[in-house]
Amino acid sequence: MSEAAETLDGWYSLHLFYAVDWTTFRLIAEDDREAMITELETFIKDKTVARESHQGDHAIYNITGQKADLLLWFLRPEMKELNQIENEFNKLRIADYLIPTYSYVSVIELSNYLAGKSDEDPYENPHVKARLYPELPHSEYICFYPMDKRRNETYNWYMLPIEDRKTLMYNHGMIGRKYAGKIKQFITGSVGFDDYEWGVTLFSNDVLQFKKIVYEMRFDETTARYGEFGSFYIGHILNIEDFKQFFSI
Amino acid sequence: MSEAAETLDGWYSLHLFYAVDWTTFRLIAEDDREAMITELETFIKDKTVARESHQGDHAIYNITGQKADLLLWFLRPEMKELNQIENEFNKLRIADYLIPTYSYVSVIELSNYLAGKSDEDPYENPHVKARLYPELPHSEYICFYPMDKRRNETYNWYMLPIEDRKTLMYNHGMIGRKYAGKIKQFITGSVGFDDYEWGVTLFSNDVLQFKKIVYEMRFDETTARYGEFGSFYIGHILNIEDFKQFFSI
Amino acid sequence: MSEAAETLDGWYSLHLFYAVDWTTFRLIAEDDREAMITELETFIKDKTVARESHQGDHAIYNITGQKADLLLWFLRPEMKELNQIENEFNKLRIADYLIPTYSYVSVIELSNYLAGKSDEDPYENPHVKARLYPELPHSEYICFYPMDKRRNETYNWYMLPIEDRKTLMYNHGMIGRKYAGKIKQFITGSVGFDDYEWGVTLFSNDVLQFKKIVYEMRFDETTARYGEFGSFYIGHILNIEDFKQFFSI
Amino acid sequence: MSEAAETLDGWYSLHLFYAVDWTTFRLIAEDDREAMITELETFIKDKTVARESHQGDHAIYNITGQKADLLLWFLRPEMKELNQIENEFNKLRIADYLIPTYSYVSVIELSNYLAGKSDEDPYENPHVKARLYPELPHSEYICFYPMDKRRNETYNWYMLPIEDRKTLMYNHGMIGRKYAGKIKQFITGSVGFDDYEWGVTLFSNDVLQFKKIVYEMRFDETTARYGEFGSFYIGHILNIEDFKQFFSI
Amino acid sequence: MSEAAETLDGWYSLHLFYAVDWTTFRLIAEDDREAMITELETFIKDKTVARESHQGDHAIYNITGQKADLLLWFLRPEMKELNQIENEFNKLRIADYLIPTYSYVSVIELSNYLAGKSDEDPYENPHVKARLYPELPHSEYICFYPMDKRRNETYNWYMLPIEDRKTLMYNHGMIGRKYAGKIKQFITGSVGFDDYEWGVTLFSNDVLQFKKIVYEMRFDETTARYGEFGSFYIGHILNIEDFKQFFSI
Repeated sequence: MSEAAETLDGWYSLHLFYAVDWTTFRLIAEDDREAMITELETFIKDKTVARESHQGDHAIYNITGQKADLLLWFLRPEMKELNQIENEFNKLRIADYLIPTYSYVSVIELSNYLAGKSDEDPYENPHVKARLYPELPHSEYICFYPMDKRRNETYNWYMLPIEDRKTLMYNHGMIGRKYAGKIKQFITGSVGFDDYEWGVTLFSNDVLQFKKIVYEMRFDETTARYGEFGSFYIGHILNIEDFKQFFSI
Repeated sequence: MSEAAETLDGWYSLHLFYAVDWTTFRLIAEDDREAMITELETFIKDKTVARESHQGDHAIYNITGQKADLLLWFLRPEMKELNQIENEFNKLRIADYLIPTYSYVSVIELSNYLAGKSDEDPYENPHVKARLYPELPHSEYICFYPMDKRRNETYNWYMLPIEDRKTLMYNHGMIGRKYAGKIKQFITGSVGFDDYEWGVTLFSNDVLQFKKIVYEMRFDETTARYGEFGSFYIGHILNIEDFKQFFSI
Repeated sequence: MSEAAETLDGWYSLHLFYAVDWTTFRLIAEDDREAMITELETFIKDKTVARESHQGDHAIYNITGQKADLLLWFLRPEMKELNQIENEFNKLRIADYLIPTYSYVSVIELSNYLAGKSDEDPYENPHVKARLYPELPHSEYICFYPMDKRRNETYNWYMLPIEDRKTLMYNHGMIGRKYAGKIKQFITGSVGFDDYEWGVTLFSNDVLQFKKIVYEMRFDETTARYGEFGSFYIGHILNIEDFKQFFSI
Repeated sequence: MSEAAETLDGWYSLHLFYAVDWTTFRLIAEDDREAMITELETFIKDKTVARESHQGDHAIYNITGQKADLLLWFLRPEMKELNQIENEFNKLRIADYLIPTYSYVSVIELSNYLAGKSDEDPYENPHVKARLYPELPHSEYICFYPMDKRRNETYNWYMLPIEDRKTLMYNHGMIGRKYAGKIKQFITGSVGFDDYEWGVTLFSNDVLQFKKIVYEMRFDETTARYGEFGSFYIGHILNIEDFKQFFSI
Repeated sequence: MSEAAETLDGWYSLHLFYAVDWTTFRLIAEDDREAMITELETFIKDKTVARESHQGDHAIYNITGQKADLLLWFLRPEMKELNQIENEFNKLRIADYLIPTYSYVSVIELSNYLAGKSDEDPYENPHVKARLYPELPHSEYICFYPMDKRRNETYNWYMLPIEDRKTLMYNHGMIGRKYAGKIKQFITGSVGFDDYEWGVTLFSNDVLQFKKIVYEMRFDETTARYGEFGSFYIGHILNIEDFKQFFSI
């Protein structure tokens, strides 16, 4: 695997997007709806145990626009735990009023283009560990999008020598650094797991920073020549204490 | 960010497109339907407060053809206000008879290719402010379309030197100027927010002007080589006093 | 607009495609179904007034295959009249059993590549007028497809000098002329109005002529290098006196 | 039409694909379901008259996989007869439990690349007639796919001189000949009729032959450089005497 | 077929993907749901007979994410047996609560690029037989994706001389070998059968190996220049003894 950059892989990741079917949800008696919301709250609180024991984490956001209403992002040590969470979620009573609109299967990844040759086990490095098994921020806004590296006839990322990719990724990373403190970024690898090669999940209290970083990077050669993007999803945080208000009609 | 042109960003923007489900709406008793329309009128009137206090604006149009029946365009100072408006709208009783067909998340943007180097804060310039925080015209017709700048193998907008982009954008702008007085144009940036890079919203009392400007620009190098378009939506104004007639069956 | 060929624009155009939902229509009592058909007949007859006063026209065809069952094509002097017709149509009782499948918004257009420089107002030329404000033939068969001119990296229609486009369009037109008497062709422009740049609507009593002309043109450089096509729709005329039989189950 | 190869055109063709909605069909009482099957059998038997009088033909297959359950292929001398057959079929009671999934409109075609210059009317040639107005085999398996000839920037079929196309088609045909006796092939032209340029329908008692011929041809320059394919459908014959068993739940 | 590599073909293959419609399934009384699960168990046990007599095999997995909930993969000596299995499955009572989401029709294939010229009948070679008529592993995780070899203007797999393809495939295979013991790989050919040219089905007890092999291969020229991928599906094994728990609400 001399040509492929080594990757470090952390928790498995599942992004679940749902639209609310308000039309049928409204038909339910109010106390019944409240029971459903309570069941959902209990489900989410139960998932918080993983966060507290650092065996995973999750985040819930209200997506802007019609691509979805809800994003639930789950991180867990094993892929099969994500299957189980998804199955449990789909069996919640409120799930009868949620329409699946998109999902993304991946794994927290650090691409190791800049790795030096040391004897250290990177998985034991505390900085690396903190990024592979992260505690998610509770920022006001989230941004998610999947992406590929292009394999065009002239510009083919996967045919570039590793030294060129290293240089490109270094410059690319320098832009990212300028947003430190403004944006928290999580890269999840999905080669072999889902339809794009990576997912990018950004958190910020200032939604405009998402536009600024993605726009600035678009002029960077790594993105300008080799980046291919899927759909972009933007959302505002939905705290458990706001579920009742969010679902009330 | 030397290579990226600076952008100035104003109000956040949400275009919502809906089709009316006449088949189920007809099943509702007439007085109940009228109550729903009254609720919708109240909702829209309530939103007019933002326009009056210059804290946002909105526009409502009846889309031609089957892509949608209604376009609601909302502008607000914060993205989360748009989430809230969308959630409120979806909980209106009449929303049970509206089918979401498309939406667009963006922010009013001035691309600053032609900015001189002055000490002035552009956000304090009254001409700039009027464009970033606009009062929307109540023209007879609207046109909306999203667009990208191409990143092809030979012609890649984001690999052009900024001077070339400035020249191209200057010529592009010259065409636009010829339509001053006939068309009011609003550009919203959506890099990092939605699937295309920009949204274009045009207003005119003469729908043919939309065809003329888009056709003339197609021969301009900026568009001919670098423009990539999404779907085009055309609509006729739907004033609040016409809701009853529009929704009557 | 020196590089763009001048266009002459006539009546606005709306193609509406619907599939019949036979499953639910069958559930309706026969006399109720007949009342719906009568209402539809009255609606169409009412539209015939525009044809008689030469303020528009319409055509109704039964589409072959599963893309749609019905095509209704309306022409009117103002775009907003088309909105109104569409809204009225969607409120007809029978529309509850019709599923919208595709639509096209455009305007009758003559591209003026071959225009000489004269002082004559082309809109006063009777030959031009007859084509901009046409009386539609009642041929047995219809063919509709939308199309673009390509903007590829090597072959980009919109970067060709106008002289080259004139030559290409002249040769293209020569093929069309060979089908005079066999096919009536209507070009509608949709740049800025819908997702393709033009719609092509052909009428003939011999459906094979549609294949012959489109196939022959495919070898013409204008099409071979620069033509990009959307979906093709073929239909057989559905006269008002055949509605009862068409909708009877 | 010097550059386009002449085509000979036979019967019009309509491929109709449907999925069975078993969920709702099961809700029907068994004797009612049987009445529907009987009605379908009568409809198909009635269509057999055309085969017997050599005024058309049809074939019915059970499609493998979820693209469809049923393929009905009809051939008739006039396009409008196909409209009528489709309308009749959609009004059968069993059609309420069939979901249209795809269709293809075309005409049996012989491309005349190899035609010599003779005075003979090819439509009077018995070999040609047998291919333009064919009697369909009742093979165990069917394969259908639509296809285009590519018009790429470098390799553009429609810009090749006719001599080059003749050579390419000759070599292409030589591969086809090797499968004589194993596969019966029907080409239908759909330029101007449907979204691809041709439909290919293959019959064989050995389903593996479909893979062998399509794979071998993929290395032939005609296909390798110029062939563009739509979806592939594979099915097993569904004889009228097996309808009861196929539809029984 | 000198230029096409010879293929060896084994059992026919059908991948069926379904989403569970929990909303309607929940409406069924519990004992009725259990009866449906029992019927499904019986159906699957019945299919196990083929495995035991080495006349086919099957595998059932719970897909992660919203593309599907269930993957059922069936292998059989005849394509028509797969039709029959699919029809039987769709008539199971539980199938009323399963929504078809994707399927793939193919045949177990060994591409014979590395075949020497021997007199041996490869179908009699026990190593070959074991791969053409395999016994599927019961690994924890499955990965499925369809793929094509690209026919681009510059890089066209099907225009490469067979010697070049042999070299490329040899290097490609060398990467695969590194994963022996970690991953079991099954290639199914679908040229002429379904929309891509091959399906790839991988089994492993360590889901991360799927990402590692697909990522490493992406840098291999065979994939980097010529590989084109469809959707990726990942799943966790669903044993018959877990059906009750999986379907319980």
